[in-house]
Amino acid sequence: MNVDGQNYRTIWLSDDGVTVEVIDQRRLPHEFITTQLRTVDDAVDAIANMTVRGAPLIGATAAFGVALGLRADPSEEGLQRAVARLIDSRPTAVNLAWAAREVANAVKPLPLANRFAAALKEAQRICEDDVASCLRIGEHGADLLAQLPVGNRPIQILTHCNAGWLAAVDWGTALAPVYRAHQRGMAVHVWVDETRPRNQGASLTAWELGQQGIAHTVIADNAGGHLMQHGRVDVCIVGADRVAANGDVCNKIGTYLKALAAFDNQVPFYAALPHSTIDWNMPSGDLIRIEERDPDEVHTIVGLDTHGALSRVRVTPAGSAAANYAFDVTPARLVAGLITERGLGAASAAGLAALYPLRAQTARQ
Amino acid sequence: MNVDGQNYRTIWLSDDGVTVEVIDQRRLPHEFITTQLRTVDDAVDAIANMTVRGAPLIGATAAFGVALGLRADPSEEGLQRAVARLIDSRPTAVNLAWAAREVANAVKPLPLANRFAAALKEAQRICEDDVASCLRIGEHGADLLAQLPVGNRPIQILTHCNAGWLAAVDWGTALAPVYRAHQRGMAVHVWVDETRPRNQGASLTAWELGQQGIAHTVIADNAGGHLMQHGRVDVCIVGADRVAANGDVCNKIGTYLKALAAFDNQVPFYAALPHSTIDWNMPSGDLIRIEERDPDEVHTIVGLDTHGALSRVRVTPAGSAAANYAFDVTPARLVAGLITERGLGAASAAGLAALYPLRAQTARQ
Repeated sequence: MNVDGQNYRTIWLSDDGVTVEVIDQRRLPHEFITTQLRTVDDAVDAIANMTVRGAPLIGATAAFGVALGLRADPSEEGLQRAVARLIDSRPTAVNLAWAAREVANAVKPLPLANRFAAALKEAQRICEDDVASCLRIGEHGADLLAQLPVGNRPIQILTHCNAGWLAAVDWGTALAPVYRAHQRGMAVHVWVDETRPRNQGASLTAWELGQQGIAHTVIADNAGGHLMQHGRVDVCIVGADRVAANGDVCNKIGTYLKALAAFDNQVPFYAALPHSTIDWNMPSGDLIRIEERDPDEVHTIVGLDTHGALSRVRVTPAGSAAANYAFDVTPARLVAGLITERGLGAASAAGLAALYPLRAQTARQ
Repeated sequence: MNVDGQNYRTIWLSDDGVTVEVIDQRRLPHEFITTQLRTVDDAVDAIANMTVRGAPLIGATAAFGVALGLRADPSEEGLQRAVARLIDSRPTAVNLAWAAREVANAVKPLPLANRFAAALKEAQRICEDDVASCLRIGEHGADLLAQLPVGNRPIQILTHCNAGWLAAVDWGTALAPVYRAHQRGMAVHVWVDETRPRNQGASLTAWELGQQGIAHTVIADNAGGHLMQHGRVDVCIVGADRVAANGDVCNKIGTYLKALAAFDNQVPFYAALPHSTIDWNMPSGDLIRIEERDPDEVHTIVGLDTHGALSRVRVTPAGSAAANYAFDVTPARLVAGLITERGLGAASAAGLAALYPLRAQTARQ
């Protein structure tokens, strides 16, 4: 997507053919800089410290991370160590484990000398597959938006956190329908949840929508319910970090609260995700391990100070404790549907089986 | 309540007998300073710029504000102008209009020369009445907490925004039960919603709980639903800026989302308020005018920078719009009960009438 009019992806192989480059998302929206990953350690750090984030992009980074690990040590032990370290770097998104294992499975039959090149190729395939999936999510989602009975006024979409192109390799998941609708000439306006504690909405979603010229308004996470009570939201679309086999949606903390408000006000609430986000082995969302992050993310906030420098300020009193749960689980009963690369499905075991009959069958075995 | 071990109220008449002193709540938790109000303009500004905030304290400040206005101009016209300006300073809290009119009604029959002194006396009566009401709210609320089936572990209370002693003259509304329970020797722990955009939870509630030595944990506004899903909250108690005659509760933006989560998880959700917060002339909460504040409160956050100075940082990209709705309305159907100085009542016209039979009768006429 566009950054100052130039086309970017969030992750790519550098011209040297052995280095991976990513956008450092911790500096946005105030600074646009890219950074290079040369080792599996670099990839683990980039995921853990949230240089990259978003379930599909974490997956892509993990795939490249396995390749970078194999460059240093292509042995069986090296492969297993790289996969294990990457999977441990963040616990909640399932794409991470999925992508690391896809690469591992692709290179396992190969002689050591061929593994690095094959892993890079597999990581690139995963990236291309993600781009294609997100584009199809965008088409299916834009079809859905086109059917909303809004007359001639702009469609009002509420989203939480960032599930835009910055969360994937390109296009995004929750925002792909918005981008495709905009490109089709439909009028759209996005309510952007700030998404404390890390403010991915205020910083990333607002920035990427602005870069594509899409109307949007940032709101406190507290405001969405009020807007829905007053008919100011036509549809909610969020991403997902993991979808359980029963259709429960694990996503950024606070998603559940918006789903409750949507349900209470008859606003349809959708999660948009590619197949790699579905955890066929997770029977129910309440079994998903929820990452707890550093309480300092709650105590403090980073922004641009009046001198134009990035500055961290503390909002809580010294001596107060803070807790920082990164995700919550929205029960499938509150989800109007899942927007996938295969189209719209019900958030249920049957809905997932209808979209992915072969995969669902394998999982049951 | 205690500030560094010394007893304070939020508003008091200075020793000179003609100046009103308040805590400047915009500097907390990082600096504790008080400021003097000498004119009705000072009182209007203190309310509008949130030097003081919280429905009961806004009422007390408005009462003193009428007196300060009468000191400069005790005429009928001066009185009406002072009342009108104070009522306009913030639109949502009903205590403001109630208190200003109480003082006006008390001084109207009096000769001009006696009005200032009488108004001061009436303002002080309103303050004493508020302190007594809040203490009784505390007793009734503590009785309610004592009945929760938590066994020997601490009672887990979630609150939103600040409805502690800083929001009233003393004791507070939502936190009064917590303070009384603590003083009775019950073990309590408070989950403190940060309460973006102005962070009254992270800054004021956390600070005042810390000053009284009460265990608490600050959380992002997004986190409460997850905690309730996992049995980590026994009860929610919030304050109110206005309660409609049907029991709908208008309170800080985001209250509705917590009430939905409480309802969905069978966690009892209470609003605590004195009689002055009830708007007998407002048939339903959805008719209450919701204040919209400066979008800069969403764009930026104030905190303590690494040099120990108060600093404002911007979190959104230049060019992004923001919206800032200050309150929302929680439908009475989601409210387990109202904790008032007269005890616990249902959030309904019948419940309010049972608590305040004479007032309800007058309102119907």
